[in-house]
Amino acid sequence: MASSSSLTLSQAILYHNHGSNPLPAFSLPTYSALKSSNSTPSVSLSARAAVSRPRLSSRRRTIRASAAVETIEKTTDTALVDKSVNTIRFLAIDAVEKANSGHPGLPMGCAPMGHILYDEVMRYNPKNPYWFNRDRFVLSAGHGCMLQYALLHLAGYDSVKEEDLKSFRQWGSRTPGHPENFETPGCEVTTGPLGQGIANAVGLALAEKHLAARFNKPDNEIVDHYTYVILGDGCQMEGISNEACSLAGHWGLGKLIAFYDDNHISIDGDTDIAFTESVDTRFEGLGWHVIWVKNGNTGYDEIRAAIKEAKSVKDKPTLIKVTTTIGYGSPNKANSYSVHGAALGAKEVDATRKNLGWPFEPFHVPEDVKKHWSRHVPDGAALEAEWNAKFAEYEKKYKEEAAELKSISTGELPAGWEKALPTYTPESPADATRNLSQQCLNALAKVLPGFLGGSADLASSNMTLMKMYGDFQKATPEERNLRFGVREHGMGAICNGIALHSPGLIPYCATFFVFTDYMRAAMRISALCEAGVIYVMTHDSIGLGEDGPTHQPIEHLASFRAMPNIMMLRPADGNETAGTYKVAVDNRKRPSVIALSRQKLPNLPGTSIEGVEKGGYTISDNSSGNKPDVILIGTGSELEIAAKAADELRKEGKAVRVVSFVCWELFEEQSDAYKESVLPAAVSARVSIEAGSTFGWAKIVGSGGKSIGIDRFGASAPAGKIYKEYGITAEAVIAAAKSLC
Amino acid sequence: MASSSSLTLSQAILYHNHGSNPLPAFSLPTYSALKSSNSTPSVSLSARAAVSRPRLSSRRRTIRASAAVETIEKTTDTALVDKSVNTIRFLAIDAVEKANSGHPGLPMGCAPMGHILYDEVMRYNPKNPYWFNRDRFVLSAGHGCMLQYALLHLAGYDSVKEEDLKSFRQWGSRTPGHPENFETPGCEVTTGPLGQGIANAVGLALAEKHLAARFNKPDNEIVDHYTYVILGDGCQMEGISNEACSLAGHWGLGKLIAFYDDNHISIDGDTDIAFTESVDTRFEGLGWHVIWVKNGNTGYDEIRAAIKEAKSVKDKPTLIKVTTTIGYGSPNKANSYSVHGAALGAKEVDATRKNLGWPFEPFHVPEDVKKHWSRHVPDGAALEAEWNAKFAEYEKKYKEEAAELKSISTGELPAGWEKALPTYTPESPADATRNLSQQCLNALAKVLPGFLGGSADLASSNMTLMKMYGDFQKATPEERNLRFGVREHGMGAICNGIALHSPGLIPYCATFFVFTDYMRAAMRISALCEAGVIYVMTHDSIGLGEDGPTHQPIEHLASFRAMPNIMMLRPADGNETAGTYKVAVDNRKRPSVIALSRQKLPNLPGTSIEGVEKGGYTISDNSSGNKPDVILIGTGSELEIAAKAADELRKEGKAVRVVSFVCWELFEEQSDAYKESVLPAAVSARVSIEAGSTFGWAKIVGSGGKSIGIDRFGASAPAGKIYKEYGITAEAVIAAAKSLC
Repeated sequence: MASSSSLTLSQAILYHNHGSNPLPAFSLPTYSALKSSNSTPSVSLSARAAVSRPRLSSRRRTIRASAAVETIEKTTDTALVDKSVNTIRFLAIDAVEKANSGHPGLPMGCAPMGHILYDEVMRYNPKNPYWFNRDRFVLSAGHGCMLQYALLHLAGYDSVKEEDLKSFRQWGSRTPGHPENFETPGCEVTTGPLGQGIANAVGLALAEKHLAARFNKPDNEIVDHYTYVILGDGCQMEGISNEACSLAGHWGLGKLIAFYDDNHISIDGDTDIAFTESVDTRFEGLGWHVIWVKNGNTGYDEIRAAIKEAKSVKDKPTLIKVTTTIGYGSPNKANSYSVHGAALGAKEVDATRKNLGWPFEPFHVPEDVKKHWSRHVPDGAALEAEWNAKFAEYEKKYKEEAAELKSISTGELPAGWEKALPTYTPESPADATRNLSQQCLNALAKVLPGFLGGSADLASSNMTLMKMYGDFQKATPEERNLRFGVREHGMGAICNGIALHSPGLIPYCATFFVFTDYMRAAMRISALCEAGVIYVMTHDSIGLGEDGPTHQPIEHLASFRAMPNIMMLRPADGNETAGTYKVAVDNRKRPSVIALSRQKLPNLPGTSIEGVEKGGYTISDNSSGNKPDVILIGTGSELEIAAKAADELRKEGKAVRVVSFVCWELFEEQSDAYKESVLPAAVSARVSIEAGSTFGWAKIVGSGGKSIGIDRFGASAPAGKIYKEYGITAEAVIAAAKSLC
Repeated sequence: MASSSSLTLSQAILYHNHGSNPLPAFSLPTYSALKSSNSTPSVSLSARAAVSRPRLSSRRRTIRASAAVETIEKTTDTALVDKSVNTIRFLAIDAVEKANSGHPGLPMGCAPMGHILYDEVMRYNPKNPYWFNRDRFVLSAGHGCMLQYALLHLAGYDSVKEEDLKSFRQWGSRTPGHPENFETPGCEVTTGPLGQGIANAVGLALAEKHLAARFNKPDNEIVDHYTYVILGDGCQMEGISNEACSLAGHWGLGKLIAFYDDNHISIDGDTDIAFTESVDTRFEGLGWHVIWVKNGNTGYDEIRAAIKEAKSVKDKPTLIKVTTTIGYGSPNKANSYSVHGAALGAKEVDATRKNLGWPFEPFHVPEDVKKHWSRHVPDGAALEAEWNAKFAEYEKKYKEEAAELKSISTGELPAGWEKALPTYTPESPADATRNLSQQCLNALAKVLPGFLGGSADLASSNMTLMKMYGDFQKATPEERNLRFGVREHGMGAICNGIALHSPGLIPYCATFFVFTDYMRAAMRISALCEAGVIYVMTHDSIGLGEDGPTHQPIEHLASFRAMPNIMMLRPADGNETAGTYKVAVDNRKRPSVIALSRQKLPNLPGTSIEGVEKGGYTISDNSSGNKPDVILIGTGSELEIAAKAADELRKEGKAVRVVSFVCWELFEEQSDAYKESVLPAAVSARVSIEAGSTFGWAKIVGSGGKSIGIDRFGASAPAGKIYKEYGITAEAVIAAAKSLC
């Protein structure tokens, strides 16, 4: 019975991750089923199966030693390793050649470390890419994705069959030009924009360290995996990688092992033209353990030894600098930028086949290589089954913790969580939405087991501390307040990693809204890779006052409204802030950007959580028959101004509707009938007010309407003064309304 | 006569930098006028004046040694230094107190290094903040701006009078909440967003090294200044600073001297919570010379010695880590985050006055301090006059170089430069606009002496190499192709520094358009600080094909159209690319973002440089009386599609106008009559087509129009296939047009 419960967990994870686009059906193994179904177990699997249950206290070590896929000792004949490595190289060469597009150089150089990782080191289950306790692998140098596709193919993942390799970079294929987790099960994250992957990996390793600290018991280390990364020179040059790696060192993420593909070539040529720093020294400064593998091309034992050493260092992440030759094996293009990002060409492919002694047809996987890799399907199933059994034991003994971990690993949120959100009345005291946001964060912290987050050194301004928890630090990784330092870009990408580690982990992160500019690349990837990160962005307009134009967002609302698959929310008061968090938590595959005020705002009559869920809704109206004289539309801190203007206009006998337009994306998704009920086509007299760029508002107010906003930079002065000088006032709304009706 | 020519140069620089918002009038000193007008010359000035003209070969060293403001030996009584340092502290305390807003902590801690820099080390002319050869100072930790305002005030800059200190952070003041070069002469750049300033400083130092290498002669080192920076923990955490500092080390910018205010406090508390890396080790890895000043609070001689050592290291930039106490002098708030970003409060101000023995009223500058600092006005005038004389000599001997340097230092571009731009006819071969852009860049490189730039490791994809020049490198700083490596954010901010070094320096920089997300914070500051950087952004749509959605911009056009003071240009062919560069070079106080295609595009009939200058214009029309049946509007690579659709519609008898909408901002600036001539109000049948987000287009096509675009992420496949699948086709335009007319 316990094991069936565990199986449900696996299935739930699988289902959650696939959503509407499931993998081809396959049966989930049970421990007993596995034993009988393994008709041709490899030596290593037999060895594992023969091991008797170790005593609990020494279990972790023993289980590891018993699984051949995990050992880092040399277990395979070197000639076969050579052959496997060349298989990887040629799968990459052939796929790029067929597509006539792609990056063969990295896979050719990194095939040895790729082989050792996927064949000898990593613990995974090819038939369930979402097995909770799998080792994570991130190809931060995402352009080299054919390396990962080749490895997934050899390892037996259903997402990369031979036909997928043959349709590399083609319309509708599962093998796009850069790794995309939402297209290719087995890819953990979405990389390509350089530096993102290593930062995602820091998030994955943080998640493991946090969950291990929270859930592991002396007798049952239920959370226990490594995070591996391959990053290149490009990733190293990007500032985001320094940010994330500084944090990884600070946090002591000992189970993060990064391979730096030190090939001295980037697109523009030798790295000597722009990149002569000592990466080793820098990483030592960042608090990493650094190892240098001088021969990454053929030095398998060097690579193995480095991994062994890395694992022995528990309190620091490890950077293994692996010196390789880009395009290794290509007689005329190796070690040059020409092999980085273009097909080799038929002639050079032939020359490379000759040079590496590869007589096979394109896309051929030699039988002995295939046979060698075939053990990963049963081995992986066994690993998961073992873990499932372990979880069953855990669940028996630690009921509450097991329920929390299950929620985190499946993404099934505790029933009724949304009831924890606060509600307000117009009598509730006026407050800044950043403070109201903190009330929501603290309410959610109590009911959502996977809720964690923090700020880029602005916790006390963004109001993001969860008061019931301490800081996640090296010595207190079970805590949930993350301290990112002034590292917005790294913060965003780390949160992407956390979100993609487990569907029930719900990371939030915070800074001033204007500084989304520092982290926009990571936020776009949240949107693309379906990571439901919650971006808590305070100080959302000129209303922040004296800090001036460098700190005052203007175009930021528009810039996120234009971005696909992200919700830009700007609540006006307490109820809308609560509604915003309801929506943000509900949307686990769509990130939210929440714009919050520094200044106090009243709680307005008519606002509601349900209203926010519709994106735009009427908060007050004295018209009848859906025919107001004028519709006033506001968001966030300007909804109050619209409401005030309406009061005045109504005194003068006008029929005025006030609409809160808190989230354009959600409004767009409503039925035409609902939209018509809020913004009737016949009413062209519409005035919008928002302390930001008017760009985009023409769609809402129409050709007959007017938009009050700010189409220049802000200024340094007290907030009230700037509002007045910039004309963001009820008087301006009234004047505009009168000119239209 | 030579000296009058030099004076014209000074005046021209001054005029250019001030534009329409000039400083209060003041007379420019001449060398002879100075001698007579200095009624109370300081000892140092007299000493300088008494020195007989050195022989040219040893001149540089001698001139330096003769100017007291530049020596780094102890020249002032320590008690007076203490008093001056406390003056700075209290000006900051008092201004923040009066504003009840701001950051007193940094000025209190950094006052000693600030004093030594502005009083003992730096060479500047308070009465001409734009003197070409001045030392540059950047407060990268911009929140501490009261430090700089206090120093500018003491030094005699007209931009910061006592009343300016008293109106700190108020509407219309010259002392905004963070340093803004466009508000406060004496501030070189705009800082506040952390990490930007240090990267700007790398650009300033690069500019100096480049110009020195190009223009200095063995007998006349006409370009010769240092760049100083103060940066804090926050700047150090930001990835941008690591990017820029890695380049500074690579380039060997020996005249860049950065003071790292190591105060162990950031907004969220002790830096131990998020920042425990070894900054020293990291900077050694980056190729910097590193010095540690252990007592930054009172160790004046330590600071002096560090600067001396830094200057002696010619081939590396220097980081001087200065350990300070944030809020030094405040008995209850020093060394805590509470002094970072809020006024001390009346009680603590009193306590600090007592603690530091400061009996004076708020804003008081003691007479002896005032007198001590008063020498900087005559000394500065003398420095500039000396340099002017030196330039006059230079001009006599090196006519051509002097003309180039004058163009660079004044911003007066050579007459007729725009004639170098290529023009095209419909018969010219189809080409990608990125290639046409390279033709423009190479044409401009020949005629614009201050034109320089490069790419973030994508020169061969962005097509940005100037073929007539080599690479700017440590050993070849006279060259003009910059190699930024994969460091977009640093690249943008370095270009801001270059642009703000001299009005005639015209930096361009390049990456894929989608990666503007990595550098958006720097681009926004270009717009805010009026740095006319040219952003060359290729691969501007799904048209880049197989690299997939991580590389395909969607919302980027909209996001820049929403940003103030930046031009978003998307040329459709050769003539429009040339027009785009015409506009970009002309706008020296407004940056340009140029979106360019990877794919080939035909040269269309009707496109023109003049058309681009209007932002939107008709390229073909078979209607009469300004009454087309339908207006088709396209940009960039989709203008061709609009033209094709028009051809088809005309065959069916429709009167169709095709409008190129290459730059919305420029169109917006045209007269109403012109706008009506292109987009007549009476014609509501309008169809736009653009391979990007439709966000914002409603304003152009109106409520009656239709926008064809892409409101989701892209895909990995050949470009033609994606265009078809996404419906970016002539057929779609034709269908939309027919539905409207």
